[in-house]
Amino acid sequence: MQATIDFYFDFSSSYSYVALPRLARLADDHSCQVDWKPIALGVIFKAMNHAPPAADSTKGRYVWRDVERSAALAGLSFKWPQPFPFNSMTAARVFWYIAEGDMDRAIDWARAVFHASFGEGRDCSDPDVLTGVATDLGLDGQELLEATRNDAVKEKLKHVTGEAMKRGVFGAPTFFVGDEMFWGSDRIEQLERHIRND
Amino acid sequence: MQATIDFYFDFSSSYSYVALPRLARLADDHSCQVDWKPIALGVIFKAMNHAPPAADSTKGRYVWRDVERSAALAGLSFKWPQPFPFNSMTAARVFWYIAEGDMDRAIDWARAVFHASFGEGRDCSDPDVLTGVATDLGLDGQELLEATRNDAVKEKLKHVTGEAMKRGVFGAPTFFVGDEMFWGSDRIEQLERHIRND
Repeated sequence: MQATIDFYFDFSSSYSYVALPRLARLADDHSCQVDWKPIALGVIFKAMNHAPPAADSTKGRYVWRDVERSAALAGLSFKWPQPFPFNSMTAARVFWYIAEGDMDRAIDWARAVFHASFGEGRDCSDPDVLTGVATDLGLDGQELLEATRNDAVKEKLKHVTGEAMKRGVFGAPTFFVGDEMFWGSDRIEQLERHIRND
Repeated sequence: MQATIDFYFDFSSSYSYVALPRLARLADDHSCQVDWKPIALGVIFKAMNHAPPAADSTKGRYVWRDVERSAALAGLSFKWPQPFPFNSMTAARVFWYIAEGDMDRAIDWARAVFHASFGEGRDCSDPDVLTGVATDLGLDGQELLEATRNDAVKEKLKHVTGEAMKRGVFGAPTFFVGDEMFWGSDRIEQLERHIRND
């Protein structure tokens, strides 16, 4: 049976960007469906009273270096967006708005936003940057930004974030196959073994 | 030039146990020297005001499962020691006492303690268990336990723990090649690429 992977991520999560090539390869190799689910991870962090390590802390400095090495290992171009972390709420709402009509287009949007943020270092909390990304995809940036003010779109992001929290998500990226959870871009190997039933 | 890997670990660190097979393979494949350096990680956690996730928390439950999966992936037998985490101070002091005279024997000790703890689930904070491990290695358990009360041995463990903290260690296992730091059993692939100069 074809496995379905639930892929919870936040547009401001550098390790979610790092995960993309390996995840795509896995999905291809095993004909998996990947359900992309952007969330507002900050809401979960707040509920858990968790803060990611500060950039100027011992752990923060290490993690930043690790992200850069991991991106290189994944064959990705990498540039820290300025500022970082950035508010990813608008990008996530746009995703869910597009997804209502066309999930494939929404995934194109997600890939393009990740590339603009972490591949090119652009600020994807900035409406002008997002409009530019939309235009490059042949989408109407103005329409998308307006849609992020719809209650239904806001509600969708809240709902998926709540669902993630209920399932035990505490960081990103997090993958599920059924109830089996895998956290981190560095757990795709284990996810793959699980799918192969090793 | 032959690379030297500084390997900082705590005997109570499950991921340090998980790292052992892959680290041994890497050292063999690249003729690296590995300098084993047990530390008292709890001292560093205390200084950083950090606590590992509680076993009954959302993250704790995930991490425990991840350790089990990671051990299986590494081809290791695995059983949680009771209690866990356990006080690893005595095992670490014994290491440094043996290492004064014979580093290879100290490494045998480290492997045997890890196997007793995480391979067999035995309580390596218990002097009787440690005496048994010593006997199996042809060592005098009584002598080793007495040595852990020596100021010089205590001082050695403190010193190496302080050295680790100064170098930026905040978890275990942590590896260094020169100043380049790699944290986690899941970073040995990157450590290897660094050594190969990829």
